[in-house]
Amino acid sequence: MKKYNIAVLGATGAVGREMLKVIEEYQIPVGTLLPLASAKSAGTEIDFMGGKVKVQEATEESFQGMDYVLGAVQNPMSKKFAPAIVRSGAVYIDNSSAFRMDPDVPLVVPEINGEDAFQNKVIIANPNCSTIITLMAVAGIAKLSPIRSMVACTYQAVSGAGVNGTRELEDQMHALANGGEIVHKTFPAQIAANVIPFIGEMKDNLYTSEEMKMQNEGRRILHLPELLVTCTCVRVPVMRSHSISVTLRTEKKISIAEANEAIRAFEGVRLIEDIEGRCYPTPLDTTDQDLVYVGRVRDDLTDDHGLTLWCCGDQVRKGAASNAVQIMKKLIEKAD
Amino acid sequence: MKKYNIAVLGATGAVGREMLKVIEEYQIPVGTLLPLASAKSAGTEIDFMGGKVKVQEATEESFQGMDYVLGAVQNPMSKKFAPAIVRSGAVYIDNSSAFRMDPDVPLVVPEINGEDAFQNKVIIANPNCSTIITLMAVAGIAKLSPIRSMVACTYQAVSGAGVNGTRELEDQMHALANGGEIVHKTFPAQIAANVIPFIGEMKDNLYTSEEMKMQNEGRRILHLPELLVTCTCVRVPVMRSHSISVTLRTEKKISIAEANEAIRAFEGVRLIEDIEGRCYPTPLDTTDQDLVYVGRVRDDLTDDHGLTLWCCGDQVRKGAASNAVQIMKKLIEKAD
Repeated sequence: MKKYNIAVLGATGAVGREMLKVIEEYQIPVGTLLPLASAKSAGTEIDFMGGKVKVQEATEESFQGMDYVLGAVQNPMSKKFAPAIVRSGAVYIDNSSAFRMDPDVPLVVPEINGEDAFQNKVIIANPNCSTIITLMAVAGIAKLSPIRSMVACTYQAVSGAGVNGTRELEDQMHALANGGEIVHKTFPAQIAANVIPFIGEMKDNLYTSEEMKMQNEGRRILHLPELLVTCTCVRVPVMRSHSISVTLRTEKKISIAEANEAIRAFEGVRLIEDIEGRCYPTPLDTTDQDLVYVGRVRDDLTDDHGLTLWCCGDQVRKGAASNAVQIMKKLIEKAD
Repeated sequence: MKKYNIAVLGATGAVGREMLKVIEEYQIPVGTLLPLASAKSAGTEIDFMGGKVKVQEATEESFQGMDYVLGAVQNPMSKKFAPAIVRSGAVYIDNSSAFRMDPDVPLVVPEINGEDAFQNKVIIANPNCSTIITLMAVAGIAKLSPIRSMVACTYQAVSGAGVNGTRELEDQMHALANGGEIVHKTFPAQIAANVIPFIGEMKDNLYTSEEMKMQNEGRRILHLPELLVTCTCVRVPVMRSHSISVTLRTEKKISIAEANEAIRAFEGVRLIEDIEGRCYPTPLDTTDQDLVYVGRVRDDLTDDHGLTLWCCGDQVRKGAASNAVQIMKKLIEKAD
C-alpha cells in the first residue's frame, strides 16, 4: 500500500494536535509525518503512533516531498505559507478561512459535497465549525427539497477560540468555585456563568464575520447559491462541542417523519430519540467523537414549509480536525 | 397615605424572597407584611425593612384582612389556595402558570398591557419569565407595526428552576474545578459546561410546555391573537439572567433605525450600543436589576419584513418578582 508524507502546519495547537490523533485513529497510511509550528514551539515532542515526533519550525522549504499539508493555523499564517505549499506540489487542506470563498478552492464537507474535493486538488478549504455541524444536520433534508432559508442560533464552545479559550473558561470556573479574581483576555467578557453574543468582527450589515459564514459557506457546500441565512453566534461556557438551533424553510413541504428518516440515513449523523432517558442530545454527549447528533425535529409553527431542529457536534473533531482528515482520506482512497 | 396588607405565598423560595426585597426597594406602603410558606418553613425569620418577619404556615385562613397576595408557588399550591384568597377579598397576583390562559384572568406586563390589570382585579397572572423578557424587547417595535411571527431561541439561567437549580450549577462547577462527582437531580443532565435543549414537559406537537408559553402568552399580552412563535428553550449554565435571540416579522417593514428608536423609547428597556467597550449586552450585565437590555438589532436576512435582535434580563427580577410587584404597584397607584 502506498504511504503518504503528511505535514501538519500548526501542530501544537488544539486543532493540530487533534489532527494527529485523527490520522492515527483513521489508520491513514503515513510515510513521513512532519509536525510544523512557529520557532517558539520547535523542538516540542508530540506523541504519534506509539512514538514521539519532534516539532519543526515551519519555513517555506518545509513542504518539499510532502503529499498532503493539513493547515491548522490562523489566516495570516495560512496565506503566508500557501504559495510555498502549492509550489512543493503537496495538496493543502486548510482549516483557516483564508481561501474559503475563493471560487477556485473547493470548500468541502465530505459527506455533503465530497466530490467537490476532486475539482481542484491544489488547495481545499475546511469550512467553519458551526457551519459544518449545522449543514451535517440539515443536508439529509436538503436532499428531499432545496433549503430556501435558515434561522440559526448557535451555542458555541470555548474550544473554538483554541487552547486559550479552553484555559480561560477553566480558570474562571475555578475562580468562581473557590474565590479569586475573574480575568478575561481571550473573550470580550467573562464567559464562565455567562454567554457572549458576538464572535469574530462586525461587518457592515451588523452581522459578525462568524455569523455570515453560515450563509456564505452554506451556499457553496450545499450548492444553493440563493440560500439565505440569519445567524446569531453565541459563545457559551461549554468546553468543546457546539450546538445549533436551526429553523429551516424548504421549497417542498417536508414532514417530520420524512425529515427524521433523511437524518437517520445520512452518513456521519445520528438521530437522537433516546439517550440516557432523554429524547435530545446535549453538547457533552458528542464530546470526543465525529458524529453530529440531531434531535427535537418538529414543525416550524411560523411557516408551513418549515422545520426546526437541534444539533450538537464536537467542534475540534468534525468541526475542524476530523473533517480535514476525512477530506485527505477521500483523496487518498480515490488515488489508490 | 393608605397602607396595604400584603401576603407573599411561598416567601422562602427564590422568587418569594426577591418579592420582599422588591417591595422594600419600591417603597410600597405596607401595613402588615405576611410571609407564608409550607409548615416545614414556618418559623423561619426573614429580613424586611430593617427588621425580621416570621414566616407562617399557609392555610386557607391565612389571607383574611389582606389587600394583596403575591404568589410565588408552583401550580398545584396556587390552585389549592386561589379560592381561599379570592374569598378573602384580596387581589391575587400569581407567578405560577395555573391561571395564565384563563380568559377571565388578566396576564400582565405593566409596561406593555398594564391597563389589562384593571379589567378583573380578582386574580392577575404574572407571565413566564422568558416571555416577559422577550416581549419587553419587542413591544416597542410592535407599537410601530403588528408582529406576525417570531423565531426565538432562549439561553435560560438555572434560577428558573429555583434555589435547587442554582445550587446544582454551583455544586457541579465546584466539582469540575476541584475534582469530585457530578450529580444531577434538578436538571435532566449535567448543566455545568453543558446546555440542555429541553425545559418543561413535551406537548403533542413536540414542543415543550415552556416553548409554547412564548406564543400562547405572547398573544394575550401583545393583543395579537394570531401571533405565531417557533421557540426553542435551552437551559445554559448562567446563574440568573435569561437571554433570547429573536427574529421577528412585522406587517409593515421597520428599519433598524426605527426599531432602535422604539426600543430606546420603551419604558423598562435599555438599548445597548456600548457597555464596557462592547456593543451588546450579556446576561451578567443585567443581574440584580429590572431593566431588560436589548442589542444587536439588525435586518433578518431571510425576510424583507424581518428584524433580529438579542435581549437579556434578570429572570428572578423582571422575569418574576419585580413584574408581580409592579402589577401591584400599578393597582395601588390607581386606587390612591
